[in-house]
Amino acid sequence: MIFLVKIMGVVGSPRKEGNTNYLVKEALKAASNLGVETELINLGDIEIEPCIACDICKSTGECAIFDDVPSLLGKLVDSQGVIMGSPVYFGNVTSQLKMLIDRSRPLRMDFKLKNKIGGAISVGGSRNGGQETTISSIHQFMLIHDMIIVGDGAPLAHYGGTGVGSTINSAAGDEVGLETSRNLGQNVAELALQISKK
Amino acid sequence: MIFLVKIMGVVGSPRKEGNTNYLVKEALKAASNLGVETELINLGDIEIEPCIACDICKSTGECAIFDDVPSLLGKLVDSQGVIMGSPVYFGNVTSQLKMLIDRSRPLRMDFKLKNKIGGAISVGGSRNGGQETTISSIHQFMLIHDMIIVGDGAPLAHYGGTGVGSTINSAAGDEVGLETSRNLGQNVAELALQISKK
Amino acid sequence: MIFLVKIMGVVGSPRKEGNTNYLVKEALKAASNLGVETELINLGDIEIEPCIACDICKSTGECAIFDDVPSLLGKLVDSQGVIMGSPVYFGNVTSQLKMLIDRSRPLRMDFKLKNKIGGAISVGGSRNGGQETTISSIHQFMLIHDMIIVGDGAPLAHYGGTGVGSTINSAAGDEVGLETSRNLGQNVAELALQISKK
Amino acid sequence: MIFLVKIMGVVGSPRKEGNTNYLVKEALKAASNLGVETELINLGDIEIEPCIACDICKSTGECAIFDDVPSLLGKLVDSQGVIMGSPVYFGNVTSQLKMLIDRSRPLRMDFKLKNKIGGAISVGGSRNGGQETTISSIHQFMLIHDMIIVGDGAPLAHYGGTGVGSTINSAAGDEVGLETSRNLGQNVAELALQISKK
Repeated sequence: MIFLVKIMGVVGSPRKEGNTNYLVKEALKAASNLGVETELINLGDIEIEPCIACDICKSTGECAIFDDVPSLLGKLVDSQGVIMGSPVYFGNVTSQLKMLIDRSRPLRMDFKLKNKIGGAISVGGSRNGGQETTISSIHQFMLIHDMIIVGDGAPLAHYGGTGVGSTINSAAGDEVGLETSRNLGQNVAELALQISKK
Repeated sequence: MIFLVKIMGVVGSPRKEGNTNYLVKEALKAASNLGVETELINLGDIEIEPCIACDICKSTGECAIFDDVPSLLGKLVDSQGVIMGSPVYFGNVTSQLKMLIDRSRPLRMDFKLKNKIGGAISVGGSRNGGQETTISSIHQFMLIHDMIIVGDGAPLAHYGGTGVGSTINSAAGDEVGLETSRNLGQNVAELALQISKK
Repeated sequence: MIFLVKIMGVVGSPRKEGNTNYLVKEALKAASNLGVETELINLGDIEIEPCIACDICKSTGECAIFDDVPSLLGKLVDSQGVIMGSPVYFGNVTSQLKMLIDRSRPLRMDFKLKNKIGGAISVGGSRNGGQETTISSIHQFMLIHDMIIVGDGAPLAHYGGTGVGSTINSAAGDEVGLETSRNLGQNVAELALQISKK
Repeated sequence: MIFLVKIMGVVGSPRKEGNTNYLVKEALKAASNLGVETELINLGDIEIEPCIACDICKSTGECAIFDDVPSLLGKLVDSQGVIMGSPVYFGNVTSQLKMLIDRSRPLRMDFKLKNKIGGAISVGGSRNGGQETTISSIHQFMLIHDMIIVGDGAPLAHYGGTGVGSTINSAAGDEVGLETSRNLGQNVAELALQISKK
C-alpha cells in the first residue's frame, strides 16, 4: 500500500509520555483516519543542540552541527503536513522545540517547507495559561517558512489544539483538549490531501 | 470569459485613497496576474455599523442590522480568497475593519468561510509600528472562521504585507511594503487556484 | 475623605450587564479594598463614534467628533490606573472598545496616559477562546500610550483576568475568571498607590 | 557610592558582539545616565542547559542542573529591573534565551521577580521581520513572573527597542533601533527608581 500524503507530528516536550504527546497522537490518529500516513517524533527521544549562529548554512545550505536534527528536518521536508505540539513554558514553546525551530534555518534558504500544511497544539498548566500565545509562536515559525496554517475548525474553531493539564495524565480526560486536537489533525490532513491531489 | 476563482480585497481604512488601499490593490494586481478575478471593497465607501450582540443571528442565521455589511459578507462567501488590509491603529486593525469582523458572525454559524484562503496587510506610521500585531489580529479572525492562512512567502517571508507610511502617498515608494504585499497576493491566489482545481 | 488615587474600569461590551461587566466590577472591588477610588464606565451606556482619520487632532490636540468620548478620555487622564475589559469578539476586543481606543489618539499627542497603570480582562465563549489574544490587543494599546502593564499575579499569574462565559450570567460562577480579575484589580491598585506616593 | 537600584541587561544572542548586544548596551547606558547601576550578561558567555521538566524545583525551590544559570537568576533577583534583548529567530527569542526563560521556573515558585520592571529589545534581519512578536514573547515571560512591563515611550512609543540588522555591525547606524532602545532603557530605569524610593 502506497501512501502519497504524510503528516509528521512533533512533540516538543522533554517528557515523552506527557499530555502534549497524548494530544499530538490524538491529532495524528484523526489524520490517519482520513488515509494519510503519520509519524510521531518526540524531541525527548532525540539529541538536539541549539543553533549557534555560525552561518555555515548560509554558504553550504547544510547545518554544521551533527546531532539528530538534520534527519528530523529531512522527515519534515518529505511530509506534506506538520503538527507541532508543545507544553506551555512561560507562554511559549519549550526550549527543546525552540532549538528545533532555530535549527530549521537551512530549510529556509530555498524554502523547502513551502506549502506544507501546519497546525499547532499546546498544553498549559492552567485554563488560560499561555496556550494561545504558544500556538502563535508555532504559527509564526510556520509562516516564516512559507507554510500554510490551519486551525482546529468547527465547532470550537480557534487557533489549534488547546489542552489543560496540571498532572501527567490529564490529557486523557480533557474533552476540550481532545476535541480541538483531533479537529486540528483532521483539518491538516484534509488540506494536505486536497493539495496533493493531481 | 469565466473566472472560477475570485479574491476579494478589503481595505479597512477610513481613508479611501491611502497607503493601505495602495498596497491591497498591489496585492490584488499580483493575484490577478495569475488569472484570478479580483474585487476591491473600501470600507470608507460603505455604511457599516457595529455588532450590538443582539444574538438574533444565533436563531435566524442573519444579521438584523440593515446596512452595507450583509452584501459585503455575501461577496466574501462567493470568493475563494480574502486579502484584508488595515492601517495600524494602536497596534491593531481600525474600528471600521473591526466592525466588519464582528458583523461576520452570522457566517460562522455554519462556517461559510471555511477553507477560504486568507492573507493580511498592514501599514504603520513608523518602522516597527504595530504592523505585526495588526496582522496577527487579522489572522486570528480568519482562523476563527476556519480559513486557511498564508504569509508573504519568499524572499522576506514573514506574516504578510507590511507597509510604512507616515504620509498619504508613502506606499508607492515603499519597497518592502510593495514587495511583501505583491508576494502575499500571489501566495493567496496560487493556493486558491490549487484548491479550486477539480 | 480625599482619594488621591483613582482606577477607572472600562467595560467594552455592548451588553451592560454581561460577564465582562461582572468581572471588571470584581476587579474594581478588589482595587477599592486597597483604598483607591474607582469608577466604572460601560461603553454600552455611552455614545461612541469611530475615528475617521481626519487628523484634526494632529493640529489642535482635540478630537473633532462630539460624542461621549472626550469626556471619558478626560476621566482616563484624571485616573492613575485603567482596567479595560472586553468580551472576545473574533479573538480581539469589541468594535465598541476599538472605537474608544482609536479615539484616544489626541491623548497620545503629548502622552497624557504616560505612566498610568494598565490591566486587561477578557471573557471568551469557550475555554481557550481568544482570551489571551484579546488581552494582548489591550496591552498593545496601553504600551503605545506609554502606560505601564501589569498582569494578574500570583497564583495563576498570566496576562490578566480571563473569564469563560457562554451565557449571560456565567461569570458569577467562574472561579478562574473571578480570581484572575480580582488579582488583576489588586495588582493595578497596588502599583498605582506605590507610584503615587510622594 | 552606593547604588540602590540596579538594572540587569541580558543579551540572548549566541553572538557576543552582535547587534542585540549593541542595542542592549545602549539601553543600559541610557539607564545608567539616570543614576542606576547596570550589569550586562551575554548568554554567549555562559554555560546554559535546557529545563528537562524534572520538577525537582517544585519540591526544593532549587534547580537541579548545575551550570551558570542559578548564578544569573540570582542577579535578576537582586536587581530592580531587567532589559532582555534577543535577535529574532523565527519570529521569537533565541533558543539560548528560551533556555534561560524556562530555567527561571524556580523563581516563580514564590514569585521572586514580582514587581521588577521589565523591558524588551529585539533585532530582526528585515524591516518587519518578527521584532514585534519576539518582544511579545519576552513580555509574556515577564508577566508570568508578575513583573511590570514598560515600552519604549515617546516619541515612537511602541513595544520596546526594535532594531534591524542584516550584518553584524548594523546596529550602530540604525537610528530607530538606537532611539527605541535608549528610550526603553530610560523608561525601565525611571520606573525602577520611582518604585524603589521610600
